[in-house]
Amino acid sequence: MMKEIKGGVCAAQGFKASGVHAGVKASSSPDKNDLALILSEKECTAAATYTLNRVKAAPVYVTMEHLENGVAWGVVANSGNANACCPMSHENAQAMGQAAAKLTGHSAEDFVIASTGVIGQTINIGAIEAGLPKAVEQLVGNESGSDAAARAIMTTDTVKKEVALQCDIGGKTVTMGGIAKGSGMIHPNMGTMLCFITTDCAITHEMLEDALRDIVAKTFNRVTVDGDTSTNDMCVVLANGMAGNELIEWKDEKYDAFYQMLLALCTAMARKIAADGEGASRLVTCKVSGARSEECAERLAKAVVGSSLVKAAMFGADANWGRVICAMGYSKAPFRPEYVDISFCSAAGEILVCEKGAAVAFDEAKAKQILTQSEITIAINVNEGEDSAECWGCDLTYDYVKINGDYRT
Amino acid sequence: MMKEIKGGVCAAQGFKASGVHAGVKASSSPDKNDLALILSEKECTAAATYTLNRVKAAPVYVTMEHLENGVAWGVVANSGNANACCPMSHENAQAMGQAAAKLTGHSAEDFVIASTGVIGQTINIGAIEAGLPKAVEQLVGNESGSDAAARAIMTTDTVKKEVALQCDIGGKTVTMGGIAKGSGMIHPNMGTMLCFITTDCAITHEMLEDALRDIVAKTFNRVTVDGDTSTNDMCVVLANGMAGNELIEWKDEKYDAFYQMLLALCTAMARKIAADGEGASRLVTCKVSGARSEECAERLAKAVVGSSLVKAAMFGADANWGRVICAMGYSKAPFRPEYVDISFCSAAGEILVCEKGAAVAFDEAKAKQILTQSEITIAINVNEGEDSAECWGCDLTYDYVKINGDYRT
Repeated sequence: MMKEIKGGVCAAQGFKASGVHAGVKASSSPDKNDLALILSEKECTAAATYTLNRVKAAPVYVTMEHLENGVAWGVVANSGNANACCPMSHENAQAMGQAAAKLTGHSAEDFVIASTGVIGQTINIGAIEAGLPKAVEQLVGNESGSDAAARAIMTTDTVKKEVALQCDIGGKTVTMGGIAKGSGMIHPNMGTMLCFITTDCAITHEMLEDALRDIVAKTFNRVTVDGDTSTNDMCVVLANGMAGNELIEWKDEKYDAFYQMLLALCTAMARKIAADGEGASRLVTCKVSGARSEECAERLAKAVVGSSLVKAAMFGADANWGRVICAMGYSKAPFRPEYVDISFCSAAGEILVCEKGAAVAFDEAKAKQILTQSEITIAINVNEGEDSAECWGCDLTYDYVKINGDYRT
Repeated sequence: MMKEIKGGVCAAQGFKASGVHAGVKASSSPDKNDLALILSEKECTAAATYTLNRVKAAPVYVTMEHLENGVAWGVVANSGNANACCPMSHENAQAMGQAAAKLTGHSAEDFVIASTGVIGQTINIGAIEAGLPKAVEQLVGNESGSDAAARAIMTTDTVKKEVALQCDIGGKTVTMGGIAKGSGMIHPNMGTMLCFITTDCAITHEMLEDALRDIVAKTFNRVTVDGDTSTNDMCVVLANGMAGNELIEWKDEKYDAFYQMLLALCTAMARKIAADGEGASRLVTCKVSGARSEECAERLAKAVVGSSLVKAAMFGADANWGRVICAMGYSKAPFRPEYVDISFCSAAGEILVCEKGAAVAFDEAKAKQILTQSEITIAINVNEGEDSAECWGCDLTYDYVKINGDYRT
């Protein structure tokens, strides 16, 4: 009985948020929020996953240090600059925590620090320090707080990304909500993915961390190619326990209920990020079924949604399934080409284009109709086993090239 | 004393070639050659490398069978259809060899068979059989034969790719020449790469195969990302021994001279393929030096030239070195970010943009001038060792999307 509600990152009890224009990037419009703050009334159990990139931005290292004790009170995040690869990056990331601490009465270590934007340019820390008092003043525990924070972390995102869910856990109503940004889609995680999730569930650090690690692998990491990750990626959950449910400390049915809620939230966010891929005109889902293992299904599906040639074909609404089977072939996952069935599906119907690895005659007009929808599924059955996986991507368009051809200026 | 000469695949003694319009693709212009034939006067030692894609087109399997005995007399290749993933693909690939055999007095097994074009549409074998007599008639052992054959294997290529070299081996003049096609550049090998090389060098099958395998890894496979390969890729060398040099059967200095010639030819072809990437406006070379191993240098360089964000930045002549170090970071190759120096170089000069992993102030106007040239080198020193590697790619442009958005029609 999970239900979607409003309120994003402020939906759960005891969380407030705000977003303001601090002017991190000199050229940004005064209407563009670029500094987000999230704060809890009570201390939170915290868990996070970080970029696997060997080059990590300073805020990632600083947040790792801050969350070593497994607790946090809030998040300070900016857009407009990645705060990476500059001589003062580390000190500047620490300064963001110190500034938030001074204004809220907490310690710097109580804050998650995150940044997104261009790499290799010194961040305007003065602008952030000057903007934070306003962010503290404007903290509110309702929809508009979440909205302002969600907008403050957007870069090339064209829509803000918020989700909130509610369900019953052991007789108590537990709420979870989040905001995210992410919109770099050919190697998606290279365009930073940030996701901040808040919940009033009472749950131990160990259980929270287990659930998050597992779910990130099945959701955000399936909007990607080869596990490519930006220098700044981060997904954080803060749980303040204010729902009053019995503490989740074992993998029992209450853990399962929490897990399903977090999975639903992260899946919804992953789809939003894929659909808002830079320049994207369509959300492309690849679902591989009949695989000998989930890992194999995931690898095949990732290769398909990650193929530039498949993505360009989806832009052109071209039922070029040869590129689909070709991408499967170089995925390094085991499968038998002569067993493969491929269909294209959307709200306009479904059409089989390849059966047992070979072409089948199909109605090109119908295929075109299916492929011109805004959400397309490439359904592949490898007819070898019982396992399946879904990965998400988008089409490759002129606008992707335009957006990325001159991002710094 | 290697020198470049004219004549392409007909430069070496005893080789003739032709290219004709057979009408493999009904919609193609009658001016577009789509059937190539290469024939030697004498039996050739043959070596080949093939796609590593799990899905291989029928001509690849048929050629593997034909070259099992290590000898061949010629090549039959078509563009306009990949002859892959159709019920009759295998029989049709065999029929190409049989038709060539009947017209030339050889056996079908004496021919290398290759195709490039769309996957999953039945090839018009009748058109090929009807066109072959004309191709046999037009066989000539000069520049115009090579030119016609080189044009016949082009698909989205914008320039034909021919190279010929000559050098002295043990007192004899040995000649080597080749033609190639290839122009799919984000996952380059997915746009089929075909390369046919002929030489009059006397060399054993073992030595030829060793040299080719090693050199393909250092050249064509460095125009690529993750070893992605199309269903149809093939690189073949035919050596007919007519130069009269002492047979190369050991890894002595004569082998070395042959090796250097083949390496130079394949490097030149690899650069031509990269520069003609679909929609490309610039050839982008990434040279990584100071690495702890050649493999490590290669992996870093490949990640950089393969990054869509780097490629889009090169299109925009944007000195966005953050994307370069970010791509290095997810390459999975070991290096220390804090040791990395990055420069951009071209005919217009050289500019250092990152030193010891951090931003350095640089003249943006000068960077722009360097990056607007048609050949750009991203020079990276990881300052850890002695090894280096070069990989080649191109920029990502609007035209790439246009070319691939509707390739089938």
